[in-house]
Amino acid sequence: MAGSTFGTLFRVTTAGESHGPGNVVIVDGCPAGLPLSVDDLVPDLLRRRPGQSRIVSPRNEADEPEILSGVFEGRATGTPIAILIRNQDQRSRDYGDIAQKYRPGHADYTFDAKYGFRDFRGGGRSSARETTARVAAGAIARKLLTLACGVRVLGMVDRVGDVVADLGDPADRTLEEVEANPVRCPDPAAAERMEHRIKEVRKSQDSIGGSATLVATGVPAGWGEPVFDKLRADLGKAMFSLPAVMGVEFGQGFGVATARGSEHSDTFSSDGPRGIHTLTNRHGGMLGGISSGMPIVLRCAVKPTSSIPQDRPTVDRAGNPTTLATRGRHDPCLLPRFVPMAEAMVLLVLADAWLRQRAVGGVDAIRLEEASEEAEK
Amino acid sequence: MAGSTFGTLFRVTTAGESHGPGNVVIVDGCPAGLPLSVDDLVPDLLRRRPGQSRIVSPRNEADEPEILSGVFEGRATGTPIAILIRNQDQRSRDYGDIAQKYRPGHADYTFDAKYGFRDFRGGGRSSARETTARVAAGAIARKLLTLACGVRVLGMVDRVGDVVADLGDPADRTLEEVEANPVRCPDPAAAERMEHRIKEVRKSQDSIGGSATLVATGVPAGWGEPVFDKLRADLGKAMFSLPAVMGVEFGQGFGVATARGSEHSDTFSSDGPRGIHTLTNRHGGMLGGISSGMPIVLRCAVKPTSSIPQDRPTVDRAGNPTTLATRGRHDPCLLPRFVPMAEAMVLLVLADAWLRQRAVGGVDAIRLEEASEEAEK
Amino acid sequence: MAGSTFGTLFRVTTAGESHGPGNVVIVDGCPAGLPLSVDDLVPDLLRRRPGQSRIVSPRNEADEPEILSGVFEGRATGTPIAILIRNQDQRSRDYGDIAQKYRPGHADYTFDAKYGFRDFRGGGRSSARETTARVAAGAIARKLLTLACGVRVLGMVDRVGDVVADLGDPADRTLEEVEANPVRCPDPAAAERMEHRIKEVRKSQDSIGGSATLVATGVPAGWGEPVFDKLRADLGKAMFSLPAVMGVEFGQGFGVATARGSEHSDTFSSDGPRGIHTLTNRHGGMLGGISSGMPIVLRCAVKPTSSIPQDRPTVDRAGNPTTLATRGRHDPCLLPRFVPMAEAMVLLVLADAWLRQRAVGGVDAIRLEEASEEAEK
Amino acid sequence: MAGSTFGTLFRVTTAGESHGPGNVVIVDGCPAGLPLSVDDLVPDLLRRRPGQSRIVSPRNEADEPEILSGVFEGRATGTPIAILIRNQDQRSRDYGDIAQKYRPGHADYTFDAKYGFRDFRGGGRSSARETTARVAAGAIARKLLTLACGVRVLGMVDRVGDVVADLGDPADRTLEEVEANPVRCPDPAAAERMEHRIKEVRKSQDSIGGSATLVATGVPAGWGEPVFDKLRADLGKAMFSLPAVMGVEFGQGFGVATARGSEHSDTFSSDGPRGIHTLTNRHGGMLGGISSGMPIVLRCAVKPTSSIPQDRPTVDRAGNPTTLATRGRHDPCLLPRFVPMAEAMVLLVLADAWLRQRAVGGVDAIRLEEASEEAEK
Repeated sequence: MAGSTFGTLFRVTTAGESHGPGNVVIVDGCPAGLPLSVDDLVPDLLRRRPGQSRIVSPRNEADEPEILSGVFEGRATGTPIAILIRNQDQRSRDYGDIAQKYRPGHADYTFDAKYGFRDFRGGGRSSARETTARVAAGAIARKLLTLACGVRVLGMVDRVGDVVADLGDPADRTLEEVEANPVRCPDPAAAERMEHRIKEVRKSQDSIGGSATLVATGVPAGWGEPVFDKLRADLGKAMFSLPAVMGVEFGQGFGVATARGSEHSDTFSSDGPRGIHTLTNRHGGMLGGISSGMPIVLRCAVKPTSSIPQDRPTVDRAGNPTTLATRGRHDPCLLPRFVPMAEAMVLLVLADAWLRQRAVGGVDAIRLEEASEEAEK
Repeated sequence: MAGSTFGTLFRVTTAGESHGPGNVVIVDGCPAGLPLSVDDLVPDLLRRRPGQSRIVSPRNEADEPEILSGVFEGRATGTPIAILIRNQDQRSRDYGDIAQKYRPGHADYTFDAKYGFRDFRGGGRSSARETTARVAAGAIARKLLTLACGVRVLGMVDRVGDVVADLGDPADRTLEEVEANPVRCPDPAAAERMEHRIKEVRKSQDSIGGSATLVATGVPAGWGEPVFDKLRADLGKAMFSLPAVMGVEFGQGFGVATARGSEHSDTFSSDGPRGIHTLTNRHGGMLGGISSGMPIVLRCAVKPTSSIPQDRPTVDRAGNPTTLATRGRHDPCLLPRFVPMAEAMVLLVLADAWLRQRAVGGVDAIRLEEASEEAEK
Repeated sequence: MAGSTFGTLFRVTTAGESHGPGNVVIVDGCPAGLPLSVDDLVPDLLRRRPGQSRIVSPRNEADEPEILSGVFEGRATGTPIAILIRNQDQRSRDYGDIAQKYRPGHADYTFDAKYGFRDFRGGGRSSARETTARVAAGAIARKLLTLACGVRVLGMVDRVGDVVADLGDPADRTLEEVEANPVRCPDPAAAERMEHRIKEVRKSQDSIGGSATLVATGVPAGWGEPVFDKLRADLGKAMFSLPAVMGVEFGQGFGVATARGSEHSDTFSSDGPRGIHTLTNRHGGMLGGISSGMPIVLRCAVKPTSSIPQDRPTVDRAGNPTTLATRGRHDPCLLPRFVPMAEAMVLLVLADAWLRQRAVGGVDAIRLEEASEEAEK
Repeated sequence: MAGSTFGTLFRVTTAGESHGPGNVVIVDGCPAGLPLSVDDLVPDLLRRRPGQSRIVSPRNEADEPEILSGVFEGRATGTPIAILIRNQDQRSRDYGDIAQKYRPGHADYTFDAKYGFRDFRGGGRSSARETTARVAAGAIARKLLTLACGVRVLGMVDRVGDVVADLGDPADRTLEEVEANPVRCPDPAAAERMEHRIKEVRKSQDSIGGSATLVATGVPAGWGEPVFDKLRADLGKAMFSLPAVMGVEFGQGFGVATARGSEHSDTFSSDGPRGIHTLTNRHGGMLGGISSGMPIVLRCAVKPTSSIPQDRPTVDRAGNPTTLATRGRHDPCLLPRFVPMAEAMVLLVLADAWLRQRAVGGVDAIRLEEASEEAEK
């Protein structure tokens, strides 16, 4: 079991390398009846796609998904939905050089250490290409959560290098604001500076890191499990399963290290239309790992891509010193395309949490007790 | 499935509340033959225990573990090891006030929202008491990893409020340095200031946050899976499954947001006794989610405990405004006792990763090919 | 992962050997609110217990369960329920002889082959003692299914050696009929002959096999999954996971080998109060692995216990020929005590199937489509 | 989670309906280095295929598998292997009639009850078409087990209606004997009578049941887990997950119901080249659920296909009485094509058991103890 399955009830299994015939995802557990077609998958796949703007990789991947099963007459049947996205425009000749050399910051060496050899035609299974399958699955989760629960998940770039965006309350940001610029930063002034910085970095044959904020609104109180499968834990795993993520924080995040209990804990209130809620959201939407009904807010730190065209020292498979410059067409900054990938993972976690809560929630305890008393007579 | 099981092959299942009869853990998958007795569990349980110093909760929990199964004549039999740790000194009268009121920052409200009611005698399943079971299981993983692989896992407090420790290279720190003071910070000067700060905070009826660094050394290259079950993802989940963790970062962590690719990627080298390795460890010991052979380094941000004896506004179950001061005996700073809990979770993840790698690793590909050629003749 | 966990959502994990301190079970996933106390566990544990009649093992096991967690003020809290049943009256001296010799028909040799050594004080993990934990968990499933769904599960002995019972329609049999005699056979005339045969066999220092029928009524149509997790497959696994089960069949069972399609398939009808149903039940209550609303009917073949006090040839651990007679107090026929064990496993499978169906069932497809159309405007 | 995943470490996930674009399987956990190509999949797929002889369904399914991932330069990479087998020659017009009517013996009604509607163009997910994916995965398991362990799995028809084969010791039968006739019965005389009976039944527009024996040789002692994941239990689940299986038995099977302990238990011996083994194999190759080193022998009862062209009474979706004759091209006897399907499932279980045993087996207990003593000094 090479770790290619995610989720307990809304369960996603992926396969595929960057330079093989294609990527496949099987979504097992989508409730029957969900209206679904290829058109539902395309928008998020387009957002994830390289070549969509001048600040991301210029590779041209068509990313046309084919639904192979699980949908009949426009609705999910309840059986597994398999989606195939064939690879195109692979130009594997770009990568020939790396068969024997270890790219710094890449998984070449660790794959060799684990498996004894590797598909050296690219990132293989550790390539961001693999996230295509996740984004397709996430689009199904999005439709399900939107229609059935009114949950909305939105990601946005909050930082590129030294440029920090002012997001205001991130739960107030809109998809339109995010998609208004190629950086996917809803602060237009910051977005412009970020775009400038990315172009600058690309010109200097380098890359740059940053961070993104993810927000889920509409999640009712009560999703997530108390101990190992805390919603926070599953979201944390989901984020860290994405390439290049080096840090994850919820709500006040690392800021809690300097906080006092008297100032960190959010005050409960019950005025307003939302029933019981907290007046502030330093807790990030989960308490004890269970959703509180407040927006779920998390942040991810994303490293600068290790694929840069500079000559750098490294070693080959035999351990001999050598140098290597990564050719190929890579993103100078991963953040713009990270946003839809991260949204997909949040959506998968939430769809799973929703189904898990449906399984045990709402068993009518009163009725059980009455039945119990009845039975004892 | 209330999320009480962790791990694929080294699989831990826990049960127990803070104020019930006791906590239980079943460790399923420990290889047969491991020398094991209650004595192996005690040291880590003592480190986790309240009442061990003047800067942690003064509760007196004996924490005497009983091994109920899976060990025969001093060795693990390969069958599940069940451990029972009975609760003592519960003083549930301390908690009576919270049956109807929601403590700020606690899971009272979210448990009610999820389950319809809750065991109001304390934190129930979201209490740090639950981690006793994890620490007992982690002690088994520790013994296994130490004896079989030479893996060592050590945690240390690196920050309490504004006091930041100088850890040097955290992989060089020792258990003796960590245990030399009640804060579990191996920088003695910082430890003293931290202890002072914690006492100060307690006097002002408040609590304070901080952060801890965890290091695993001796992990060979090749552990972890490429996609969803990246070692980084499983460690991230493990950390976020602990109470009060609001942020997790690996290696350079959130620092990558301002880094360039040319400066972040660690350079491979092969001189020295370790074979292929990197000259620096900004990547934190995993590349592509698979261990690189370098020390695994991660940091956790831990919030100030929400249990403080100040009167604070909140609401009751009906949504009516009220006030509440958490009585009882709580830690003014969670960090000292967080260290053994976090070590336990790192150990559980690594024991699991080791077994998973044993399952598929070392299948002799050359032999398979020869057998294949032989078969075709 | 030594295979000690069963179920996806109603998830049971057991630990414990026949001669260790006790057996433990953790039930994770019981919906909150279920009225529950130790009294609910006792009846089935008493039915499983040795020493209850003159035709079963005379061992005296008190089997007093202690609920360690997950129940508060008489109701399940939704968190894991741990139950401890301590071992008593173990008389391990009875077993001393088998430390070096392999009992025919027992798992001594296979445990040694697997683990390198074994707890030789009895059957260890392969002892029927382990089923105590299952029966306790099954009692929780029984209460849940009874109160929430009206499902009833009943087992009965249908054969002991050459004595075959006339069950009529097994779905019409009652607990009272089953418990009316120590054999647990609801055909009183057959029961008497069975009891006679068992005593006869015991006198001749031998043991005898038989079979049991299990019936679940009240299961609505729609439980179970279409492919690998067919309800039939999960029930089959559950039965074969019990000690001594050598065959399992559903409905017409092995009788289908000589059947024609025109005569095997049950005819659908919709008259009567049950809506759509079949006129006969040769299919055994599941079609395509999914429950049909008809009674679920299965049969298990149970081998004669291998523990007989005759001297028999075998080998010791070194492979040297020797002889061995199993001392100790064993059941001359496993069937009477097999009934509650098998009921427990059927109950666990059904509780799991119910929760799994709750997770995905009843998503209102019409509402989703309206929401979908609304969203497109 | 609609039950589309099978296995813990050698994990298979399938998707696909009989009349959709195709069937997909993802094999996650195949060890790196296994020589593998499409040619390895073809032989078993051809054996499973309709249209291969005059006694099976005349449908023409090309069943050309495409490997989409996980294989590089002729070897498995260790990452998931996805295989796509497109559907062809579907003639869905043959099935139009069943959109509104429930075929007796089929899963039409139970799918409707579960999901609210169904893909009525054929058996959908409950069609034997789905087993194509299993057979492709099983072929990978077969190559792995053959090359790495010398395990061989062979199925054979032992009964069709009243015609019973004389298999001798089934562990002595060969693939050549099995494939020597279209029935896949290694007893040539019985095979001829079976073929005759099948043709007869088809002429009378009916179908007929039967049974098959599966044998696995070369499995060393020690595979399988002691309690829920007994090898017997996993094999039982695997068999019952196949369409049309109504009974499964191991070794002496239902014959144990009339056996005495003194005659059922197989005697251990250690003469001969196999080390410790049993002189007979009534236990069917597993003791306590763990392999004994003897051949694993099981039998499956397979019902007559419910798809027969006779007019039969049934009801429509609204419950109104109607009649229905299943048109289309169906097998008058499922057994010949059942053999490769059942072999595939046995192979998947054994590959999983092998990996699970690799994970925990062979931890050098002596070395651990020495290390333990060393550590204590």
